[in-house]
Amino acid sequence: MQDKLTLMIPGPTPVPETVLKALGRHPIGHRSGEFQAVVKRTTEQLRWLHQTTGDVLVITGSGTAAMEAGIINTLSRGDRVLCGDNGKFGERWVKVARAYGLDVEVIKAEWGQPLNPEAFRSALEADTEKRIRAVILTHSETSTGVINDLETISRHVKAHGTALTIADCVTSLGASNVPMDAWGLDVVASGSQKGYMMPPGLSFVAMSERAWQAYERSDLPKFYLDLGPYRKTAAKNSNPFTPAVNLYFALEAALEMMQAEGLDAIFARHARHRDAAQAAMKAIGLPLYAAEGHGSPAITAVAPEGIDAEVLRKSVKEHFDILLAGGQDHLKGQVFRIGHLGFVCDRDVLTAVAAIEATLQTMGLHKTSVGAGVAAAAAALHS
Amino acid sequence: MQDKLTLMIPGPTPVPETVLKALGRHPIGHRSGEFQAVVKRTTEQLRWLHQTTGDVLVITGSGTAAMEAGIINTLSRGDRVLCGDNGKFGERWVKVARAYGLDVEVIKAEWGQPLNPEAFRSALEADTEKRIRAVILTHSETSTGVINDLETISRHVKAHGTALTIADCVTSLGASNVPMDAWGLDVVASGSQKGYMMPPGLSFVAMSERAWQAYERSDLPKFYLDLGPYRKTAAKNSNPFTPAVNLYFALEAALEMMQAEGLDAIFARHARHRDAAQAAMKAIGLPLYAAEGHGSPAITAVAPEGIDAEVLRKSVKEHFDILLAGGQDHLKGQVFRIGHLGFVCDRDVLTAVAAIEATLQTMGLHKTSVGAGVAAAAAALHS
Repeated sequence: MQDKLTLMIPGPTPVPETVLKALGRHPIGHRSGEFQAVVKRTTEQLRWLHQTTGDVLVITGSGTAAMEAGIINTLSRGDRVLCGDNGKFGERWVKVARAYGLDVEVIKAEWGQPLNPEAFRSALEADTEKRIRAVILTHSETSTGVINDLETISRHVKAHGTALTIADCVTSLGASNVPMDAWGLDVVASGSQKGYMMPPGLSFVAMSERAWQAYERSDLPKFYLDLGPYRKTAAKNSNPFTPAVNLYFALEAALEMMQAEGLDAIFARHARHRDAAQAAMKAIGLPLYAAEGHGSPAITAVAPEGIDAEVLRKSVKEHFDILLAGGQDHLKGQVFRIGHLGFVCDRDVLTAVAAIEATLQTMGLHKTSVGAGVAAAAAALHS
Repeated sequence: MQDKLTLMIPGPTPVPETVLKALGRHPIGHRSGEFQAVVKRTTEQLRWLHQTTGDVLVITGSGTAAMEAGIINTLSRGDRVLCGDNGKFGERWVKVARAYGLDVEVIKAEWGQPLNPEAFRSALEADTEKRIRAVILTHSETSTGVINDLETISRHVKAHGTALTIADCVTSLGASNVPMDAWGLDVVASGSQKGYMMPPGLSFVAMSERAWQAYERSDLPKFYLDLGPYRKTAAKNSNPFTPAVNLYFALEAALEMMQAEGLDAIFARHARHRDAAQAAMKAIGLPLYAAEGHGSPAITAVAPEGIDAEVLRKSVKEHFDILLAGGQDHLKGQVFRIGHLGFVCDRDVLTAVAAIEATLQTMGLHKTSVGAGVAAAAAALHS
């Protein structure tokens, strides 16, 4: 009998009962005063989460929709952009940029390695004609569990003077510090099924004043993802198109819980869970996929040499009803990923480690002493 | 004390408890076998609802996203299209088409009047060079309560030979007969918060084989709304981007209820409610806005001469907690609209009529004998 799934994937992430109850309310009219009050409150909450005084717009769609909106609302056909690519999502933004006819220079790093801020600095410094309009990159690369140094790269973009920083913060926002204004980020995209502790269906795009200036001259065709009408209606606590009303209820409830916890506590919790997951995997002899010191607070990718990661992952699901994520694309079978993003508590991390150890023991594949992972996780969680 | 809102707007529409319970489940992984089973079942259910053997794709987004997807996946820059425009949504599709650089010929009718199929026939017959690539029109015009003769217009498009029919069926699907294959429709767009009896957040694009042929040569830029990856992943019961998982649960539950009722019964119920609403408004001396014989089974627009429609509408909300829709754009204050779309029962229609009568009586504005509307509605519901 299985009916208490524990999600430990990088989205959908677990959802608190309070949020599910809000989700399951009867809908109301999206043009009503009652709903405008919801939009008003969530707008303020979203500014708090993004640490910005600017606009944070809500799109009914996935994180990809938000990121695409950020790109196509600030750029024009033929514009030159730098795209960071060190994983599946980096690859995706290159594809989006090319689909719209942008002139893309890709700055690559191997999967598992972080993007090198120096590569951005030198490309930006070499651009004396100021042709680069934007730098597009992923903060937390979900496919590899690597967190990129967005702060430093954004500083190099600022030194360039005219380029925008467009950041995919889909799995970092709400897990890791993303102070949009302090870091000078121009576009921050995120999705509801991640740090927001709610189901998928809403995505968010935060825009700086510089991004809005770029909007004015952007010529890429768009309608549903045209952020102008979102900004205009947001000023009246409304939306240009019928939004996912029930997901808005969930958003309000989730952000209220996040505000009660506080940003510093949220980031500390995610860092602790990353440390515990990393320490546990090391203790049981499973190599981490992300380069040392660059692991994301949202997700830990593990490359269990000599073990089929899919077999392990499926066994953990079958016996313990814990869903871990598999490897994407060429990493399928080579990597499994432990999501510790959003509504995750110490117990969840400890349990996942215990279940992985138990499964390795049953499979006769545990390489160190069974329990070593739990001990290491417990120590990290306690510190 | 008010906490039992009755929605009688054209979306969000009322949602059954069964559907809300499905919505409020804990989410599951969108790449899991369990979720693939949900996608598989809903795909079959959606084909049933659309009366098609072709693809019906699910987008996380509003009805506008679905309609935009239909347009930008089948057309190319500079393509000539005919756009029907007899209300706010007709206007919107003209804007979408122009945003993407299409060459738009608008076929207009006054608000409140239906589109004239003959105007389409003559424009299509005049196109001997076969330059017209598509005819874009709205089936049920939500802003005016008019239903357009999509069947006849589609027949004229078929006679043309090469143009596609792209239909906004957002408020007709699930309320009125839309046999996609029998009528030869190429693109049918709809949204979840309408006839589907579920909250907003999902939208649907059905594509004919001819539409897929047009997709192959379409050059308009797109990524999130590129239907190719939706088709490819749908074949594996999956989605290209993280879908609104909980709304999928709701979709499955709602479509199961609709299948239990049966298409003919659903259409008969909506026709009965339209007849009851129309008869009641006539009996209390409030003119209908839609031309006689062209009222939509989804919504009845009323133009209460000499009465501020907004004052009436707000009073009905305040005293009886029934939300009617107002007039859009220049109709604000002149028109109110009774939504009878989706999960609406005879009691809801009778109650709305009674509340309107009671409010008119209190305001001293009832023009006939109080109760005449209820009597007329009851007779129509019984017949």
